[in-house]
Amino acid sequence: MSSQSIVPIPADSPFSLANIPFGIFSTQSDPIPRPGVAIGEHILDLKLLAFEGIFANHGISCDVLKHTTLNAFAALGRPITSSVREYIQSLLSPSSTSPLHSNPSLLERCIVKQTEAMMHLPFDIGDFTDFMSSTTHAKNTHSGHGHGDVNVDMFDPPRAAPGRASTILPSATPVVRPVGHLPPQNHLSSGLPRGSSEGSVLAPTNELDVELELAFFVGVPTEHFERVPVEKAEEHIFGVVLLNDWSARDIQGPETLPFGAFNAKNFASTISPWVVTLDALEPFKVPHDIRKVPSYLADKGDMTYDISVSMEVIADGSTTDQRETGEARSSLRNSYWTFRQMLAFHTLSGCRMRTGDLIGTGTLSGEDQTSLCSLIEQRKHFPHRMFLQDMDEVILRGWCGTPQRGVGFGECCGIVLPARL
Amino acid sequence: MSSQSIVPIPADSPFSLANIPFGIFSTQSDPIPRPGVAIGEHILDLKLLAFEGIFANHGISCDVLKHTTLNAFAALGRPITSSVREYIQSLLSPSSTSPLHSNPSLLERCIVKQTEAMMHLPFDIGDFTDFMSSTTHAKNTHSGHGHGDVNVDMFDPPRAAPGRASTILPSATPVVRPVGHLPPQNHLSSGLPRGSSEGSVLAPTNELDVELELAFFVGVPTEHFERVPVEKAEEHIFGVVLLNDWSARDIQGPETLPFGAFNAKNFASTISPWVVTLDALEPFKVPHDIRKVPSYLADKGDMTYDISVSMEVIADGSTTDQRETGEARSSLRNSYWTFRQMLAFHTLSGCRMRTGDLIGTGTLSGEDQTSLCSLIEQRKHFPHRMFLQDMDEVILRGWCGTPQRGVGFGECCGIVLPARL
Repeated sequence: MSSQSIVPIPADSPFSLANIPFGIFSTQSDPIPRPGVAIGEHILDLKLLAFEGIFANHGISCDVLKHTTLNAFAALGRPITSSVREYIQSLLSPSSTSPLHSNPSLLERCIVKQTEAMMHLPFDIGDFTDFMSSTTHAKNTHSGHGHGDVNVDMFDPPRAAPGRASTILPSATPVVRPVGHLPPQNHLSSGLPRGSSEGSVLAPTNELDVELELAFFVGVPTEHFERVPVEKAEEHIFGVVLLNDWSARDIQGPETLPFGAFNAKNFASTISPWVVTLDALEPFKVPHDIRKVPSYLADKGDMTYDISVSMEVIADGSTTDQRETGEARSSLRNSYWTFRQMLAFHTLSGCRMRTGDLIGTGTLSGEDQTSLCSLIEQRKHFPHRMFLQDMDEVILRGWCGTPQRGVGFGECCGIVLPARL
Repeated sequence: MSSQSIVPIPADSPFSLANIPFGIFSTQSDPIPRPGVAIGEHILDLKLLAFEGIFANHGISCDVLKHTTLNAFAALGRPITSSVREYIQSLLSPSSTSPLHSNPSLLERCIVKQTEAMMHLPFDIGDFTDFMSSTTHAKNTHSGHGHGDVNVDMFDPPRAAPGRASTILPSATPVVRPVGHLPPQNHLSSGLPRGSSEGSVLAPTNELDVELELAFFVGVPTEHFERVPVEKAEEHIFGVVLLNDWSARDIQGPETLPFGAFNAKNFASTISPWVVTLDALEPFKVPHDIRKVPSYLADKGDMTYDISVSMEVIADGSTTDQRETGEARSSLRNSYWTFRQMLAFHTLSGCRMRTGDLIGTGTLSGEDQTSLCSLIEQRKHFPHRMFLQDMDEVILRGWCGTPQRGVGFGECCGIVLPARL
């Protein structure tokens, strides 16, 4: 890939010319957040190019690339954002008559090293929703929350829950261990029914967990009471990120009935900073395994994306730490629902979508023991794996096809800080 | 009251000089939404007064009263917003040296009839959360959603759920009957377990319901991972509105496990347009009945507000319609949790609050049959009461102490339109 761009691109970079993911960054010399695309180990500053008039003939108001979020740009819709992405690819291609090629001074000004940039949330996120997409995760986690009726089909109808938008964090933001209303003993070992909270205390969670997910951003909004059919759903999707839906399992237990997790999840969710567009994902479309779906979600063009994901827990920095930490590798192919089906189901009731709404897949666990995407699940097979300890770092990664294809998500990181008492 | 303002105030108005609730309105002649306060049957245009420099010596940047939402104003905090409200009271008082008194032309320009104004959402709402606050509602509704373990204490820990912010509507916005994934027959009569969805179909809800609630807006935001103790919670609360958390009970049944309602509630929630401040509510503080609370929510100054609420369903406009519709009258005193406790619990985990976040009490049902604040509950005692039909109008009302005290919420209305197939 490296020879195909005027910016050098390492062979194993997730940000090849075939990717061109969008993000919001700032630098020490210009601390105002602004749009950029990742290219190799660099960022192309789109705001600066917009001020230079580079996009003037490409069907967009350059103003949208001068904002502090991607909302206005993504709201333009895929025909326009796709065309801008293609034009950026041509700008970075050495074979073109790119103004960046002919103007080394401009190139120097608009290229920033990623190591010298700070990444921000790519969107102003209106609402966050998280789906249940893994049959394995459903079996592993929702037979243990104190409700007797575990034979309910978790995929008929699809299950999803509103989440907390105010605490979505960009990758690399530390996460403070939450305090919560805890049963008197660790419920996993106590044998108490999970609904019981007799003698509960306020204490830091002992069971801080990760959930490895993907999530997509809504681009084109919908109207109040508008229903989006499966076939039209991708017109409303801008792109995809990695998502770590941090969860405190001991806080979650007692609060699960009847509403699901609240304080167990509302303290933080971390996303990767670079939004990989559906256009970049297009070459990685693969058939979606036939599953039982309600007729209103039947999809003639039933395809998903071949996106691999992984999680790694790096134990608290101490090189002498020998404890067993979590790891997993899975795929979007383990998701019962496609992105199209998620958006179609979400708007079934007429629920309005706004640009920047974030919709998570839910934990992507597969059947294999190496593909369990949360620690609570891994501990069933690897009892020595511990929940997250203070100063542990969690790193999620994602890539399409093989890593060599050059279309990846980079990393979604977060380090755990001690609770504040 | 009428003699105490330079604007005439009907004796039964909820918007006396003792209230001064804030809202966002527009008019035909000036369609840009702007802040105002309700006074009798009129609105005092705060943006116009800000442009006139009326607030110049009152410790605020006048800019915040020129915005299209109340967010910037409410974020200033209670010492400042209280002082502005008091100053507005003095402006409207005939005994003062009010510039409105001495300048009839200014008074004429800054007073708008409510009937000539359109009301908008008062805040840009970041996140919406709904609590469970009524023991009666918990018993009535959460023993019927297919989970066996109904002996769980729904108030230990407190229960709350994230809701959908994008579909919060200002009063008077029509609500389109949602379509959803429905069991083959009405589950209330079929005897099917509520989790079962065999043979489900996509159809308009047959069980559209109302939930009569109050809700408060966050004023001063919190930091990530900051915990707000009960005693400090009111510093972060700007004011209170009525909330109708529309619910489709037949859609809700199958989707309840394990996450709670999703499409059953995400299509619409309606709020009253005038935000009654905690300052206006202060004279109506009453002791909060002693209830069992976790130690971290124990409150030495355990007070709630004496706010009465009512709901009325007006059958589809046909004067010949003799069917029995819903009605109820209840009180915030039926809430297990105070506003202080709700905010304290919400931030226990460190969940960040933003200005404009909306937190609902949950359905305020009392034990009495006349105080059941949803139709699904009323139907247990009044089987002939029907769920909402197309063109039915729901009107919620709220007032403090007796109606004659002049501090009320006005109305929160919504009419049901037929489903879009």
